[in-house]
Amino acid sequence: MRVSAPLAERIEFDLDTLAGIVDTDRSGWTRTALSQVDNDGRYEVLRMMRGAGLVADIDGAGNVIGRLPGRRSGRSLMIGSHVDTVDGGGRFDGNIGVVGAIEMVRSFREADVQLDHELVVVAFFSEEPNRFGLSCIGSRAMTGRLRPADLDRTDGHGLRFGDALPTAGIDPSRILSCAMDLSTVDAFVELHIEQGPYLESHGSQIGLVETITGISRFRALFGGRRDHAGTTGMDVRRDAGCAAAGTVLAVERIASQSLHGKGTTGSLTFTPEAVNVVTERAEMVGEFRGPESGWLRHACETLTEAAHLEGSARNVTVDVEWLPQQEPVPMNERLLDVCAAAVDELGFRRSTLFSGAEHDAAIMAQVVPTAMLFVPSVAGRSHCPEELTELNDITAGTTALAHTIFRIDRFDRPA
Amino acid sequence: MRVSAPLAERIEFDLDTLAGIVDTDRSGWTRTALSQVDNDGRYEVLRMMRGAGLVADIDGAGNVIGRLPGRRSGRSLMIGSHVDTVDGGGRFDGNIGVVGAIEMVRSFREADVQLDHELVVVAFFSEEPNRFGLSCIGSRAMTGRLRPADLDRTDGHGLRFGDALPTAGIDPSRILSCAMDLSTVDAFVELHIEQGPYLESHGSQIGLVETITGISRFRALFGGRRDHAGTTGMDVRRDAGCAAAGTVLAVERIASQSLHGKGTTGSLTFTPEAVNVVTERAEMVGEFRGPESGWLRHACETLTEAAHLEGSARNVTVDVEWLPQQEPVPMNERLLDVCAAAVDELGFRRSTLFSGAEHDAAIMAQVVPTAMLFVPSVAGRSHCPEELTELNDITAGTTALAHTIFRIDRFDRPA
Repeated sequence: MRVSAPLAERIEFDLDTLAGIVDTDRSGWTRTALSQVDNDGRYEVLRMMRGAGLVADIDGAGNVIGRLPGRRSGRSLMIGSHVDTVDGGGRFDGNIGVVGAIEMVRSFREADVQLDHELVVVAFFSEEPNRFGLSCIGSRAMTGRLRPADLDRTDGHGLRFGDALPTAGIDPSRILSCAMDLSTVDAFVELHIEQGPYLESHGSQIGLVETITGISRFRALFGGRRDHAGTTGMDVRRDAGCAAAGTVLAVERIASQSLHGKGTTGSLTFTPEAVNVVTERAEMVGEFRGPESGWLRHACETLTEAAHLEGSARNVTVDVEWLPQQEPVPMNERLLDVCAAAVDELGFRRSTLFSGAEHDAAIMAQVVPTAMLFVPSVAGRSHCPEELTELNDITAGTTALAHTIFRIDRFDRPA
Repeated sequence: MRVSAPLAERIEFDLDTLAGIVDTDRSGWTRTALSQVDNDGRYEVLRMMRGAGLVADIDGAGNVIGRLPGRRSGRSLMIGSHVDTVDGGGRFDGNIGVVGAIEMVRSFREADVQLDHELVVVAFFSEEPNRFGLSCIGSRAMTGRLRPADLDRTDGHGLRFGDALPTAGIDPSRILSCAMDLSTVDAFVELHIEQGPYLESHGSQIGLVETITGISRFRALFGGRRDHAGTTGMDVRRDAGCAAAGTVLAVERIASQSLHGKGTTGSLTFTPEAVNVVTERAEMVGEFRGPESGWLRHACETLTEAAHLEGSARNVTVDVEWLPQQEPVPMNERLLDVCAAAVDELGFRRSTLFSGAEHDAAIMAQVVPTAMLFVPSVAGRSHCPEELTELNDITAGTTALAHTIFRIDRFDRPA
């Protein structure tokens, strides 16, 4: 049974349309939140939703929300993703989940498939870490998880996040109070590219996400002494740069010793930047990710110890500041079974995996039964201009999404 | 016999005067070459020279030169140093060699000491590495060692060095042709702070420099792959930042294994700077210094090998570009003997050491018999606001300089 036949041509056309709305001064496909092109992109999504027959608008948190009434009022199903990108990112991350959801609605209408549930399609605002260091703004606001302190975060120019929101058409005095009543939502399903190589290397068309990774991020400051590079002996210098370099390698080493853990140093700066002066201060920003909360805690403790060892070996002060740990988030098991049944019915090859990337689904899962469907990323590349998911895989993902939603609506409403 | 009695009060007054001519927007005492305060500082030196009875002017390379005629024409002795500073530097580096030389002239005149030689006092232009990456501009121009290619070096804003020279009152069309005839100069002696801890730790008042360090500087570029930090396995990522961090530690390790060698990473930058993206490119700038040419070459080869090992372990490309090696420069042995005799006659405690810093004396030594006298740096600190040399040590150094010059003039004219 094919309940719906999404058209690859329409998916391609919509993705191309969004790929044309980017900051041409930046590499790749750049449509970062709180930019004019992101405003333009979200208005384009609004037009696409209305064109597909949805009753659509933008809420107080910048989320684009389209609704298709159900045959029986009172219960809803939600699908969607985001269309903002990282700086220098690709055309598929997030975008396919929004374009696929809208195409699913078109195909339902063409096949005269009518759901009992109201269908809610969402393009969440600012999913990627923005220049204020905040991510998943739209889903946090929708679930009531955005905090007043978040509005006080500043960017590199000292601008408050709250004061930047009006450039995105968002009233900062309203964003904290625009949480939706989600008690009537029986499921949220997000279609997304994998952003890693697992599905491709296992020959799978669809990935069912069991867990979304936990993340622990830190900022480490190393304080040494500014000295003449030619006259200060190696045994007496206090080189903050060397202590930081040792800590960069510790991040790599700790993660490499685990099975699923990842460890990354995102940035490292030396002060002063002079070839003939010993580095006085170094600042690094990094993170660990993994599906196991216990390992994450272990990695953080081990790294803090390693940084202090690197510092004490050089008489350099060390201050490691950890942000609150984002715990790993399991997806709804009952919903995963429904996804598996839908995918198997379609004859698609599937794998079960965990997501190493953060997603709005991890926020939504705290309030609504949630699942994620992944489609393969060529060579596992993402957050770069080379990011690619083949059109037939996106179409297969959209078909799987449609069959999953149809099953939930008809047979498998999760508790 | 005291041929001259320099006055500590006048030295202190002149150093304080120069310490007042600094860029107050920068930390420490900042008077970098090619800034208005450096122009002001060199004009202040011109006034000091004329006040001391020297016939003084500024040459085509920005050097401030004052002359005191000798009793017999034809032969000259030269003394001096520089008054430009590093960004955020101290009040003594270079300055004491200029102020001490001028005070020596005053004390000679007061004691009615007349030399057979003409005495030439110099404040060299732009000794410290300037924002074009060039150092010892004045001494290079004076010795005919400034090259046309040097004028084409650009700063961080793309400005040519040649095009920046007029802001320092220097005509770029003349600077390459203003070499002096130095064949009549029997000796150049530079008084300078040690900038390291050797004299203080050995209880010495005066240091005789045997050799000025050699320097090898490099720029290393690491090319990895931009990937999603959450989804790209540790075993497949190509992290340019980790390869660079390993190379920073290699610089430290190679230098630490030698007796006198120094190794420093001056700057390190990661691109992009995003916590959730694997570093695609890293650029580092560093150097080795040492008094032995053979060790320097060994250090460079070992570091290049280590960088390539760090790269190949992570499938990261590595390009290490070495600037031409500045060879270690020995001071004139006969002149050192004269310095030693003068210091011993004064009853000052002395050490023989090498200079880990570069100096105009290393340029002058290629043309003129050259020596350097060091005075202690408190705690070995230099190129920082905490840089300090006690006034009595500066006065002792000035006295040693005067006695050395007197001896050369009367008894020990080097061949």
